[in-house]
Amino acid sequence: MLRYAYLGPAGTFTEEALRQVASPDEAVYLPQTDVGSAIAAVRAGGADRAVVAIESTAEGGVTATLDSLATGSPLVLLREVLVPVQFTLVGPPGTRLADVRRVAAHPHAWVQCRRWLAAHLPGAVHVPATSNTAPAALLAEAAADPAALRSSTFDAALVPPAAVGTYALVPLAERVADNPSALTRFVVVGPPGPVPPPTGADKTTLVVHLPDNEAGALLAMLEQFAVRGVNLSRIESRPIGDALGRYSFSIDAEGHVTDERMGEVLMGLHRRCPYVRFLGSYPRADAVAPQVQVGTADADFVEARAWLERLRGGDPG
Amino acid sequence: MLRYAYLGPAGTFTEEALRQVASPDEAVYLPQTDVGSAIAAVRAGGADRAVVAIESTAEGGVTATLDSLATGSPLVLLREVLVPVQFTLVGPPGTRLADVRRVAAHPHAWVQCRRWLAAHLPGAVHVPATSNTAPAALLAEAAADPAALRSSTFDAALVPPAAVGTYALVPLAERVADNPSALTRFVVVGPPGPVPPPTGADKTTLVVHLPDNEAGALLAMLEQFAVRGVNLSRIESRPIGDALGRYSFSIDAEGHVTDERMGEVLMGLHRRCPYVRFLGSYPRADAVAPQVQVGTADADFVEARAWLERLRGGDPG
Amino acid sequence: MLRYAYLGPAGTFTEEALRQVASPDEAVYLPQTDVGSAIAAVRAGGADRAVVAIESTAEGGVTATLDSLATGSPLVLLREVLVPVQFTLVGPPGTRLADVRRVAAHPHAWVQCRRWLAAHLPGAVHVPATSNTAPAALLAEAAADPAALRSSTFDAALVPPAAVGTYALVPLAERVADNPSALTRFVVVGPPGPVPPPTGADKTTLVVHLPDNEAGALLAMLEQFAVRGVNLSRIESRPIGDALGRYSFSIDAEGHVTDERMGEVLMGLHRRCPYVRFLGSYPRADAVAPQVQVGTADADFVEARAWLERLRGGDPG
Amino acid sequence: MLRYAYLGPAGTFTEEALRQVASPDEAVYLPQTDVGSAIAAVRAGGADRAVVAIESTAEGGVTATLDSLATGSPLVLLREVLVPVQFTLVGPPGTRLADVRRVAAHPHAWVQCRRWLAAHLPGAVHVPATSNTAPAALLAEAAADPAALRSSTFDAALVPPAAVGTYALVPLAERVADNPSALTRFVVVGPPGPVPPPTGADKTTLVVHLPDNEAGALLAMLEQFAVRGVNLSRIESRPIGDALGRYSFSIDAEGHVTDERMGEVLMGLHRRCPYVRFLGSYPRADAVAPQVQVGTADADFVEARAWLERLRGGDPG
Repeated sequence: MLRYAYLGPAGTFTEEALRQVASPDEAVYLPQTDVGSAIAAVRAGGADRAVVAIESTAEGGVTATLDSLATGSPLVLLREVLVPVQFTLVGPPGTRLADVRRVAAHPHAWVQCRRWLAAHLPGAVHVPATSNTAPAALLAEAAADPAALRSSTFDAALVPPAAVGTYALVPLAERVADNPSALTRFVVVGPPGPVPPPTGADKTTLVVHLPDNEAGALLAMLEQFAVRGVNLSRIESRPIGDALGRYSFSIDAEGHVTDERMGEVLMGLHRRCPYVRFLGSYPRADAVAPQVQVGTADADFVEARAWLERLRGGDPG
Repeated sequence: MLRYAYLGPAGTFTEEALRQVASPDEAVYLPQTDVGSAIAAVRAGGADRAVVAIESTAEGGVTATLDSLATGSPLVLLREVLVPVQFTLVGPPGTRLADVRRVAAHPHAWVQCRRWLAAHLPGAVHVPATSNTAPAALLAEAAADPAALRSSTFDAALVPPAAVGTYALVPLAERVADNPSALTRFVVVGPPGPVPPPTGADKTTLVVHLPDNEAGALLAMLEQFAVRGVNLSRIESRPIGDALGRYSFSIDAEGHVTDERMGEVLMGLHRRCPYVRFLGSYPRADAVAPQVQVGTADADFVEARAWLERLRGGDPG
Repeated sequence: MLRYAYLGPAGTFTEEALRQVASPDEAVYLPQTDVGSAIAAVRAGGADRAVVAIESTAEGGVTATLDSLATGSPLVLLREVLVPVQFTLVGPPGTRLADVRRVAAHPHAWVQCRRWLAAHLPGAVHVPATSNTAPAALLAEAAADPAALRSSTFDAALVPPAAVGTYALVPLAERVADNPSALTRFVVVGPPGPVPPPTGADKTTLVVHLPDNEAGALLAMLEQFAVRGVNLSRIESRPIGDALGRYSFSIDAEGHVTDERMGEVLMGLHRRCPYVRFLGSYPRADAVAPQVQVGTADADFVEARAWLERLRGGDPG
Repeated sequence: MLRYAYLGPAGTFTEEALRQVASPDEAVYLPQTDVGSAIAAVRAGGADRAVVAIESTAEGGVTATLDSLATGSPLVLLREVLVPVQFTLVGPPGTRLADVRRVAAHPHAWVQCRRWLAAHLPGAVHVPATSNTAPAALLAEAAADPAALRSSTFDAALVPPAAVGTYALVPLAERVADNPSALTRFVVVGPPGPVPPPTGADKTTLVVHLPDNEAGALLAMLEQFAVRGVNLSRIESRPIGDALGRYSFSIDAEGHVTDERMGEVLMGLHRRCPYVRFLGSYPRADAVAPQVQVGTADADFVEARAWLERLRGGDPG
């Protein structure tokens, strides 16, 4: 059974992502205290895979994930999983929604449910939690100990849906979220090895540094993609760390490393940029195939290569 | 006297930046608990200016600052200040460097001094602090109370140089940093008003959204700068928050809003992009003037405009 | 009455173009022996206008016209006229198509009717003529002198339709052409003066030199158009004449000099290129309006300029 | 012995070019009446090679050559030769420069020597000749027949230097030319076959059509070259002939078909453009090696390909 390191404890959104990948019956779940530890566990051999958030609609790129993958010993992405960012409001048994005055929530959770709270719990006070699942654990504890319950600093909590079953909590409201299409994107990270075969709807993730001190270097880098008809679905800058204004770019490009056009892009980047790290090709969670521009299908490259070989051999083409 | 909101308490790197702007004799210092509060204080009228970190060599863009400036009521940047990221190792009176075993440090500080610590304090243990100045306050307290000193969980602490005087501490080592050129860039934020006059070495900061669902939109946006010969010193992506893959770009461009070439770039962006926010033009801290490409000086624009007017008037030019 | 210099004699395609511009009752027709003389007549004041071919489907740019306009004292294009390249086969009275063995034709005319001739006059021999109208004149002469007719070296001739009436000839076949959509584009040339007002479907003609010894200079020049959404309907290279590989570009761009986007393109070219000559804005003969890209209408420029002025005045925009 | 078709008769500039390629002892010289006939002779098998002018400083591309090569059965360029455009002024025996009043010259020759003539033969009248060598033949004839000499319409002629020896003429002035660096570029044309090996300073000549009705198609075509660091030394438009504004581009690119970067450019053009004809790779006459941009040497491509193969095989690169 594969061992999966992930941001625990039980009940997190990350666990929800992990369940989409492998059920607890098929895999060993290894909860970690942070994203960096989950990734380090794979590098150190203590886990076979890590499941980590890489991007969310509200926060953008998860810098801990991006930075851990960009340097250090090589790892690759094997799969992506999308999880809706919707919370469940839970309370101790007997709590009625109308009685809730103090709501425990991680600050990010609070921000993403602010309008819902204003509408359904006007005047409710925010009790900051250190994680999404911490108040769930406290509530579970309190349910077993009336004294703990009385001294609780909150009446209800916003927790991930997966926490409800884990901690045997009572939901007061479900699918709580201001933006109903808010998502977090998770990736399954593993050691280098055979690339997942192309499905026709794949992504390739890269880390690219630009040549030093060159005006228009970002423009030139983007043209490497554009001229071969490869579209980008994500591009984010991260500091390289040696000087202000020096960036590493984290990129998701549409297509698979075995696509001819992607291969030519990768070689172009490798030739021109001081550093290119390949972080894997894997199926898109949404299974949307890219629009292939005229002249950029694999057959076009194969045909063009045969034509070039004829030219080089003295044939008019 | 102007009132400055900044990330306090006394002794922070931000205070060091603020001192470069206005001494405590000339200004009212209003320490805040976080960057968002400092910016909010200006919006609410409780402060005239905020001094906030916007970028660092190690962490890149400060997302709290970028996001606070990108939306909400308009604010502008009036000045930038660079502060070296170098720490002072401090201890209670009588401490010798050789005796130090446990070092209190904010996790970011620890990371940035790791090699120095391995060389000078091999085997020292990290005691995480909640801020750069928290251990300084504890040390100051302990100096006045031998009992507190005995129960202290650390022997020494990494603090900003400004904290040494503030808390009357004894330095064990100065200029502690793995990367001697590490910097944090701070900006002075204020309400909209007259733009600081051009100095010949200025920056203009912008927030730009790309048109929806358009392949090559980032390329097209960058060409608006390139075709007028305006270089970028920083470009960072931040999620817009409504869907995965939708970005807002935070940009520093070399030049001043009153430069002809910058004006044409701004108008081009405004015409083509769904959202452009001008966050100010202000002198570069390094006073480095941009290389002006052929045909992009103000005089070239003025001359070209006169030529066009002649053409439109029926004159051959 | 305006005096028009044009490539004569009577009956040429150029005369057909001129008739679309001004009938012989309304204008003085001044036939010239070549395009250069027609243009020179306007420069010297002997004519008010010249009507000259500038481009044809079969031959491309008319180099004599392009070169005459590109240098020398300034002239501008005031109008364009399209004339179909279709010939009339004429013969002496009494000739039957079936009897034709030898066909007089200017070499260009012969080339453009080759397939028609092969189909309708298989085996017919080409008797080269020095111009399109020369054989018409000979036929007219012969009609009045039976001896001349007997010694004629040809039985029939391919002439412009306008020549039939001029020389009172008998058509054997009309609309003779291999490519039924073949066209010649003529322009009306005059001294600099008020630009014809925009019609919404206009062209602007330019001559542009690239900066010396700069790789990518042509690419950079084309980007001046692309970034402002101005499309080109014609671009041709002509040697500058001082060294191999040095070119002058003759360009037709879609739009009018008074369009905001065209104005900005012209200023951009003027700023960056060593030489830009404006050869006029005038209505398109086909009256097809350009597709205006998002953000490039006049109102977008006006609005963007007002926004920039607000920014420069200290208003948040 | 190879048979060379060229624009004759003896004494032309083309013969001068041919002599640089093969002396009359080593080759069969087959003079032709025009460029088209010389090229046709190779296609028909009547000649092994054609030597034809393709470009001149004064006239630009030689359209007859460009058009003959762009369509019809495939031919390739094997070599280029540069010939200075300098004339020799010749007269009958006994003529003194001071006595010359009427100068026979092809109109192109006259234009290129106008300033020299104004300075050295003020007031001399131009007697147009039908070719550069026609007046040389007449002078040679006249030298043998005093009656012919007396009836001659000219006193002297501007002829190519090669004509002096051919016709045993007496030079009155040598190296007559207004632009001392004026050149004509000739190419040696042959049937398809082994490509001349790369010398490190080569040119590749192409014919490329753009995709129909696509704004920015020329820009996109040029980017195929730019993104791989291949510079152009010549680009000229020629009409395709089916409609106004439809062009075929004749291009000289710096490098050899066996260069990796040129191969990738050719494949990119072949994939994206409706028509690409390879007209050969051959040594530059000036032996100037191209500036190779960072990352575009053959070794860079080979290394990038090996890297890509490693990635595809599951190796981290």
